[in-house]
Amino acid sequence: MDNQTKINAGRFFEDFTLNEVIQHATPRTITAGDSALYIALTGARNPMHCSAPFTHSLGYHTIPVDDLLAFHIAFGKTVPDISTNAVANLGYADVRFSKPIFVGDTLTTTSQVIGLKQNSSGQSGVVWVRSTTTNQQNIEVLSWVRWVMVHKNELNVPAPTTVIPDLPSHVSLDHLYIPPYFKAHDEISMSTGGQYFWDDYQAGERIDHLAGATINPAEHTLATRLYQNNAHLHCDDHLMKKSNFGQRLVYGGGVISLCRSLSYEGLENALIILAINAGTHANPSFAGDTIYCVTEVIDRYTLPDRNDMGALRLRMIGIKNMLPSELNEIKSGSKYHPNVALDLDYTVAMPRRGN
Amino acid sequence: MDNQTKINAGRFFEDFTLNEVIQHATPRTITAGDSALYIALTGARNPMHCSAPFTHSLGYHTIPVDDLLAFHIAFGKTVPDISTNAVANLGYADVRFSKPIFVGDTLTTTSQVIGLKQNSSGQSGVVWVRSTTTNQQNIEVLSWVRWVMVHKNELNVPAPTTVIPDLPSHVSLDHLYIPPYFKAHDEISMSTGGQYFWDDYQAGERIDHLAGATINPAEHTLATRLYQNNAHLHCDDHLMKKSNFGQRLVYGGGVISLCRSLSYEGLENALIILAINAGTHANPSFAGDTIYCVTEVIDRYTLPDRNDMGALRLRMIGIKNMLPSELNEIKSGSKYHPNVALDLDYTVAMPRRGN
Amino acid sequence: MDNQTKINAGRFFEDFTLNEVIQHATPRTITAGDSALYIALTGARNPMHCSAPFTHSLGYHTIPVDDLLAFHIAFGKTVPDISTNAVANLGYADVRFSKPIFVGDTLTTTSQVIGLKQNSSGQSGVVWVRSTTTNQQNIEVLSWVRWVMVHKNELNVPAPTTVIPDLPSHVSLDHLYIPPYFKAHDEISMSTGGQYFWDDYQAGERIDHLAGATINPAEHTLATRLYQNNAHLHCDDHLMKKSNFGQRLVYGGGVISLCRSLSYEGLENALIILAINAGTHANPSFAGDTIYCVTEVIDRYTLPDRNDMGALRLRMIGIKNMLPSELNEIKSGSKYHPNVALDLDYTVAMPRRGN
Repeated sequence: MDNQTKINAGRFFEDFTLNEVIQHATPRTITAGDSALYIALTGARNPMHCSAPFTHSLGYHTIPVDDLLAFHIAFGKTVPDISTNAVANLGYADVRFSKPIFVGDTLTTTSQVIGLKQNSSGQSGVVWVRSTTTNQQNIEVLSWVRWVMVHKNELNVPAPTTVIPDLPSHVSLDHLYIPPYFKAHDEISMSTGGQYFWDDYQAGERIDHLAGATINPAEHTLATRLYQNNAHLHCDDHLMKKSNFGQRLVYGGGVISLCRSLSYEGLENALIILAINAGTHANPSFAGDTIYCVTEVIDRYTLPDRNDMGALRLRMIGIKNMLPSELNEIKSGSKYHPNVALDLDYTVAMPRRGN
Repeated sequence: MDNQTKINAGRFFEDFTLNEVIQHATPRTITAGDSALYIALTGARNPMHCSAPFTHSLGYHTIPVDDLLAFHIAFGKTVPDISTNAVANLGYADVRFSKPIFVGDTLTTTSQVIGLKQNSSGQSGVVWVRSTTTNQQNIEVLSWVRWVMVHKNELNVPAPTTVIPDLPSHVSLDHLYIPPYFKAHDEISMSTGGQYFWDDYQAGERIDHLAGATINPAEHTLATRLYQNNAHLHCDDHLMKKSNFGQRLVYGGGVISLCRSLSYEGLENALIILAINAGTHANPSFAGDTIYCVTEVIDRYTLPDRNDMGALRLRMIGIKNMLPSELNEIKSGSKYHPNVALDLDYTVAMPRRGN
Repeated sequence: MDNQTKINAGRFFEDFTLNEVIQHATPRTITAGDSALYIALTGARNPMHCSAPFTHSLGYHTIPVDDLLAFHIAFGKTVPDISTNAVANLGYADVRFSKPIFVGDTLTTTSQVIGLKQNSSGQSGVVWVRSTTTNQQNIEVLSWVRWVMVHKNELNVPAPTTVIPDLPSHVSLDHLYIPPYFKAHDEISMSTGGQYFWDDYQAGERIDHLAGATINPAEHTLATRLYQNNAHLHCDDHLMKKSNFGQRLVYGGGVISLCRSLSYEGLENALIILAINAGTHANPSFAGDTIYCVTEVIDRYTLPDRNDMGALRLRMIGIKNMLPSELNEIKSGSKYHPNVALDLDYTVAMPRRGN
C-alpha cells in the first residue's frame, strides 16, 4: 500500500493559483502560558504585555498580548500550506497590527495568493501571499504580505503568468491602529523606565543597544514549536546536517523578537508596534549566535486625531557575533555585512511628552 | 547524627507487597501554563487542545487538556514511590483515558501492586502496578498498568510468591470513553487541516510521517520536570556519566509525545486518544537524537452508540536518527532495529465522514 | 549624532547616593504561565504551589505563587538600576516574605541605598540597598537587603562617606509571617509525601539530599529572562567569552531554586519560606554543572500565637559536580570548598505533629 497517501507534503510552486484563498489549520487560543513563555524566550520587558495595572492606566481592560507573539502564532499557521517546501523566505511587507489581541482570543489565518513568478531555471518560483488573521469574532487583527521562493515538483507544468503585486513601501497611515480608548500619560516612565518620549527622537538618529542575547539550541526550537511553526529546517537536525547549512536554522521571527527585546534600552516608551513596513532576513542565524541590535530612526510623524501619541518609523538591524559599535555603515541588499541577520523597517507608537 | 534518616530513597523490590495501595504525593492542578509548555515542548497542533471555538463546536464547554500531557503529569507522581530504583521501565498496558481533563482540574494518583516476580539472580524483580488518577471530584480520569524492574536492596529477604497479572491485549471496548455531549462534524477539516476521516483508513495501512524532531538537552529535562517526574536518570548528568549510558536518558513518555506530534500529518483527525493498549521503549533515547515516526493501522472498528465517530487501533513506531523510509519491516521484542525507540499500540477516536 | 544618548547604561558606584530611593521599572503581573515555567525550570514539587485543593485545605482561597519565583521576579526588576555594572553580588540579608502572593498579583519594586563604601583601589565600591516589593494594593509583600560591588566610571569623583548598615544576623521573629487563616493539619502528609514534622527535626542535624540537577544552557537563560533579569553576564556569551570566566554565569538565584527543589526529599513539609537570613554565592555556576544540596538544621523554635506550626532555621549548601557525601566539613568565607556554590541561611514554617 502506498505509504504516503495520507501525508500532506505541502504545496510546490505549481500548486499555487493566483487569487486562490487558503484556509490554514489550527485555530489557536492564546493563553497566559503563551505570554509567560514569550517572556522567558525573549526577555521582553515592555510593561504593556506584563502589567495589568499599567495597561489599565492606559485605558485597556486587560493586558494585550505582545504584538510579535501574536504575529508569530498567526504566521506559524501559514507554514504547512505556504512554506513547507520553501527554499527561502524572501521578505515581508505591509504588516498591519489591526487590533489588539488579548489572552483568550482565538486566531485563525487565511492566505490569498497575490503574485506568482517562475524562476528562469524552471526549478522554483516566487509566491506572494497576503495573509489575514481574524479573532473569534471574525474581526481582522493582523494582516501581512510575505513572499517565498518555493521548489517546483512537476517541472513540466507550464509556468503561470507572471504577476508581481504592487507593494507599498510602508504601511499607510490609515492602517496604523491605536485603540480609541487608549490614553497616554507621562507617568508611564515609572513603569517603562524610559525618560525619552516621541518628542526626543529625530530622523537620522542611531541607537546602539548594549545588550546581547545568545541563542541556545532549545530556545529557538521551543519558540518555533510554541508558534506551531512546523518548518523542518528549524526542528530536524538529522535532515539539516545534510543541507548546505549543516545544522538547523533559527526561525527568523525569533530574531525579530530578540531584537525587539534587546532594543528595549533606548526605546522604552515604544509601547505599541503599529506596523512592519518591510523586512529581510539578511543572513541566517544558528544556535550559539549572539544577537545584538542597532536602531536607526527613519522618520517621526504625528498621528491623525491623537495629541498624546506619535509614530516613529525605525530600522531594526540585527547583528550576530559582533558588537553594534563594530558595525559602521549599514548597507542593504547584496551588500549586507555577513554578520547582519535582520533588516526590519517598522513603525511604533510612542507617547508624546506632556500628557 | 545519621544524615540520611529523613530521606525517602524510594522502594526497593522487597518493599513492595502484593495488593498494597500506595498514595502518591503532589496533587497537581493543571493550568494554561502547562498546556502552553506542552505545545512548546512537543509541537502539538491538535486543535482539540489549543482552540476554544473548535472544542465548543464539538460540544465541550472549554478546551480539554492534551491526553498525553495529563498522562505524563499523572505518571510523574508515581515515580518517587514506584520507579526511583528501577532498572528499567518494561512496559505499559491497559491505559484508559477515562474522562476528559480540563484546565483547573487537580489530579491525584494512587497505585496498587498487582504483580511481583523476583528475578532468578535474586538481585532484582519485576513489579506490576495498576495506577489510577482521580480529579478533584474523586472521579477516575486515567488508569494504567505498568511494570518495572526494580533493584533489591536487602538481598536476604525471601522472594515473594510470584504473581503475574493477567493483562488484556488491548483496552476493552467498554473502557473507551467519548463524552456523551461530543458531536463530530465534517467542518473539523478546516481546523485540523486533515481531509481523511475514519472511513478512509484500513487495517494494514502504513503511514511514514515526514517530520523529524531533534531533542535538545533542555527540552527533555524541562518536560520531565514539568511532569514532576524526579527520576535521577533523566536529570542528573553527574550520576549518569558513570552509568553504562554515559549520559542522561530521555524520559520515554517524552518520545511518545513527540511521536504523537510528528504523526499529526496523516492523522489530523485523530482527535482523541481513547487508550494505550501496550507500549515498549525498545531502545533508549538521548539528547541530540532526532525522532521520526511511522504509523501502522492495526484495526478499524465502530463504536457502540456512535454514528459520528469510529475507532482506529494504531501502532506508533518511534525511530531515531533514521528516516521512516529507511525502516523496512518493523520487528518486535529482541529483534527491534537498534534505531527503533518506541513501539506503542494505541487507539484513537476519529470522526466518520458525513456528519 | 551621539549614538548612545538614549541608552541607560546602568549606575556606576559614583551614581549612588545614600538614602536615595530608586523606583524600578516593569511592574509585573504574575500568571499561571509563570508558575508552570517555574516547575519546568526547577522541578519544584511543593503542593503549596501546584495544588488548589491542598491549599484550600490549609485555609487559602487559591494557590499562592512559589516564594522563590516571586522573589526572583521582584529581584529581577532591580538589576537594570542596581547591578548592571556589578562586579559581584556579595550577599543577601534580612529577606522577608511579608505576605503571600497569588496569580494575578502585580509586583512593583523600589530600592533605597542604605550603605556605601568605596574600595581602597578607588576603582569600585560596595553598595547596600534595601529593596521593597509591593502588590497592586500597595501592600508590602517582599523586602530584602543585598550588597553588590559596582565599578566606578568617573574615577575622580570623590569617595562618599563610608556608611555600612547594621544588618540583623537573621530576620526577626516579628517579620516572620504566616497568614492568620492558615491552619495546618496532619493530612498534609498524603499530599507532600513527607512523614516528618517540625517536632522531628533537631539543631545540628544534617540531611544529604540524594537528587542532583544538571543545568542545561537554555534552562538558566530561560529562567533569567522569565524573571526579566537582564544582567549581561547571564545572557551574552559573546561578551562573556572575553571575561575571566570564559562563558556565561548562571544567575545565582537559579541555584537557590534548584537547591530548594533538590532538598524536597527530607524537607517535604517545609511548606513556607518565612525568611532568608543571609546568603552567599560561594562560587559561580556554569551551564553543565550538576547541583546537589545538603541541609543543616541550625535551629528549631516555636512561633508566637501558633500551636500548629513551628519554624526551622536551615542552612542550604549548594554543591556542584560532587556528591553531598563527598563534602565533609562545610567551611565558610575564604575557606569554601571550590565545589560549594551556595551557602544560604533561611527559615521555613513546618507543621507540628498532632493537628
